Amino acid sequence: MKPPLGRPRDDRVDRAIADATRAILAETGYAQLTVDAVAARAGVGKAAIYRRHATKQQMIFAAVLHDLLLAPPPDSGSLRGDLTALLRDIVANLTAPPAGVVPALLADVHGDPALAAAFTSTFVAAERGCVEEVLDRAVARGELPHRPDPAVAHALLLGPVFAWLFLLREDPARLGPVTAALAETAATTLTAAPA
Amino acid sequence: MKPPLGRPRDDRVDRAIADATRAILAETGYAQLTVDAVAARAGVGKAAIYRRHATKQQMIFAAVLHDLLLAPPPDSGSLRGDLTALLRDIVANLTAPPAGVVPALLADVHGDPALAAAFTSTFVAAERGCVEEVLDRAVARGELPHRPDPAVAHALLLGPVFAWLFLLREDPARLGPVTAALAETAATTLTAAPA
Repeated sequence: MKPPLGRPRDDRVDRAIADATRAILAETGYAQLTVDAVAARAGVGKAAIYRRHATKQQMIFAAVLHDLLLAPPPDSGSLRGDLTALLRDIVANLTAPPAGVVPALLADVHGDPALAAAFTSTFVAAERGCVEEVLDRAVARGELPHRPDPAVAHALLLGPVFAWLFLLREDPARLGPVTAALAETAATTLTAAPA
Repeated sequence: MKPPLGRPRDDRVDRAIADATRAILAETGYAQLTVDAVAARAGVGKAAIYRRHATKQQMIFAAVLHDLLLAPPPDSGSLRGDLTALLRDIVANLTAPPAGVVPALLADVHGDPALAAAFTSTFVAAERGCVEEVLDRAVARGELPHRPDPAVAHALLLGPVFAWLFLLREDPARLGPVTAALAETAATTLTAAPA
């Protein structure tokens, strides 16, 4: 029997391209990665890549972002516990890609409206959904009188971790104590929030 | 009398290059900027630029970062007031460069160890000095029993603003209420910090 055509074969090519992209990112870094090298490594033609991704940046985005879509943490029974778990997931997310990839992707997002829209509707939306879920649980438990602005809560959680790693370039190994303090802060602020 | 040679003339060229770089960034954006265009606009040769800056990225960094070196805010009489003023300065800093320039510079910093060292010793060090000054004033006033870790305080202040503008891409016009809440949070957290 011949293998089925269509989706399954396409999925295999998609996966080969994404795997090759991630491998080359890890080996040579973002700036040195070329579509030629990815095509050779994946065993596909460049046309197969450009049928899927309009630009090199979109190809990298698809390969890296796929693994960065957060799911809500298990219900820990408290807002503080949920925020701690969510922060741990955010840290894992931001430290998983090879060095330099996250800042380079962010610059690409700001240079390409199509990537910006994709970034907001995938990465940001997935994280925002987790933030909302954790806040809604706290409301249901009676820990919060109503749900605070999820955008503000999101900025309070994601921002300091991103700043620590990519702006201040502090030691990632010190993030443990920082995220514990952050979860404490965020829980305190959100429970005290007037609006 | 002839004008003095040496420094003054060099300063004029430095300034012409920086002004041309900023003008072109504002007009055409980061990705489109070329050293040729800057040289033509500044009325200098490309050699004059490359004597000063090893790469295009270093030229842009020098032109943009120069204006982003924070000084401590005036003493407002309280930690909360000082943090509010400092956050307002951080927002002004991050929103001053043309769209896309801050994320592009950050990617450059992560792609070039020389730029990374310059970034840490200028932009980060200037902001960190402001954070330390504001914390030291609070200790002197008796608002804080001792100075909290300045790196953590820095991440708590800078991170959410950066995330709001460049990761979540929320409305910059809404940053006013967000920074007020942030200053409140940071002051509460820092005064409650156990270590």
